[in-house]
Amino acid sequence: MEREGPVVGIDIGGTRTRLGLFLEGELAAREAFPTRDFPHLKERLRGFLSRLGTRPHAIGVGAPAPLDMRRGRVLGCPNLPQWEGAEVVAELSEEHGCPVFLANDATCAALGELEFGHRASDFVYLTWSTGIGGGIVAGGRPIWGARGGAGEVGHLVLWPEGPPCRCGKRGCLEAVASGTGIARAAREELGQELAAQQVVALARGGDPGAQAIVDRAARALGQAIAILAELLEPELVVLGGGLTRAWDFLGPKVEKAVRDFSRNPPRLALTPLGDDVGLYGAAVLPRHFPSW
Amino acid sequence: MEREGPVVGIDIGGTRTRLGLFLEGELAAREAFPTRDFPHLKERLRGFLSRLGTRPHAIGVGAPAPLDMRRGRVLGCPNLPQWEGAEVVAELSEEHGCPVFLANDATCAALGELEFGHRASDFVYLTWSTGIGGGIVAGGRPIWGARGGAGEVGHLVLWPEGPPCRCGKRGCLEAVASGTGIARAAREELGQELAAQQVVALARGGDPGAQAIVDRAARALGQAIAILAELLEPELVVLGGGLTRAWDFLGPKVEKAVRDFSRNPPRLALTPLGDDVGLYGAAVLPRHFPSW
Repeated sequence: MEREGPVVGIDIGGTRTRLGLFLEGELAAREAFPTRDFPHLKERLRGFLSRLGTRPHAIGVGAPAPLDMRRGRVLGCPNLPQWEGAEVVAELSEEHGCPVFLANDATCAALGELEFGHRASDFVYLTWSTGIGGGIVAGGRPIWGARGGAGEVGHLVLWPEGPPCRCGKRGCLEAVASGTGIARAAREELGQELAAQQVVALARGGDPGAQAIVDRAARALGQAIAILAELLEPELVVLGGGLTRAWDFLGPKVEKAVRDFSRNPPRLALTPLGDDVGLYGAAVLPRHFPSW
Repeated sequence: MEREGPVVGIDIGGTRTRLGLFLEGELAAREAFPTRDFPHLKERLRGFLSRLGTRPHAIGVGAPAPLDMRRGRVLGCPNLPQWEGAEVVAELSEEHGCPVFLANDATCAALGELEFGHRASDFVYLTWSTGIGGGIVAGGRPIWGARGGAGEVGHLVLWPEGPPCRCGKRGCLEAVASGTGIARAAREELGQELAAQQVVALARGGDPGAQAIVDRAARALGQAIAILAELLEPELVVLGGGLTRAWDFLGPKVEKAVRDFSRNPPRLALTPLGDDVGLYGAAVLPRHFPSW
């Protein structure tokens, strides 16, 4: 990694926001707090930098899609409505006098994985959590798409007649296999309000209704990974996010489905960076941002 | 395009093989003949070059997958069993004393489209024909995958319980929507041996059974294109291949499905290069081959 000035990475999550100061590519200081709104983030960032007595040379920000990546603005996802219209790049670059870059959190996570994790040159990063997101690296470079919107693995339509998705379509992977999808299935099929992790725990304990829900989710995720394998021929698929905490139980189910649905199943691996994968990626975003 | 010596492009199709001599990026001479085996191709190439009195500086070859792209060897697809093991790169480079490059025909077609066709920087090229193949360009560069096997759009599993595919899986796009898939459906559902083009003609004429088969194929293709749109956010999807000759009838059906299954439907367009798209692409393959 080339020598560079201090860089700040910011990972705006649906629940928590993480700040990191990177010096010559190493995480030197970090902070995390519950996500509120953009003015709150600006205040926390100001305090973080003032305590460290440093001025960044660049800031990279990952946030949940949809974004206007060229303009550097958050468009507001269902989990973060108060961020709608936040001019992240304009306001942070004005305040801190340095270039600021904004990209979707799953592509940032893929960058973190590319530079600090498994470092493969052809892989897909998948977040399996409340939602399902993806970031693609091919030939050693991130795939941005025409306007920065590539990697929306959660919105592959697998079951045209399937459950409704918050995106407005039906039968998206996310509607079936995400934490939200698992919880909705539990509500509808088991008649209980359960978090996805509780459904997984019930399935592990032998509850047949919970097992059916979890098996279906794992099978859909495996089908989507097989689709990625046919299209992109990745060396591996890296997974992170809350549901991967039960990988010992869920992983074999997903792997079986990947084998059933693809001719050359890629290796599946958990990110070694844990919940910080997006923070690491945000810090290297300035070097990877496309030159549109 | 930079100045370069004479380049030969070779497109080995399931039915016809095309040879082209390109001088400074322009097609200067061409020849086409029914595909037989590798010795026959070598003989035809020898005659072609001898009549033109030229020696190529490079040769690019597109052939149906599966290939060993690093070694430059054809592994033999079901349509071309006599090519199994053909050492295309080793034998042609020895005979002609120049570098030779081999890649799958659909990725070559995408290269043809990138340099001579619509020239978008984010697009997918799809062949809709006897089989279904794909080539992906992202950020102005072809996506090869870890070993040159990316772009297998025909082998996305859309219907896990669907018809068997020649690849050994079930419910691949190709099994449902390719010419072969349409013909098989006609055999099973209409009890007739018909070519796909005949099924399309019957559907156009109002035959309800043929209409059901064609509508199903178009809907599956649209679902696959929507998956490509969510993953890669292409500016457009370019189509070629025999079934696109009925695009006036089939195109609206495919476009409707793409709109139903994707949030940001890409524009669909036919290749302006017709059946020569793969030949053009083979000629520029030497400049795009990955530096593995």
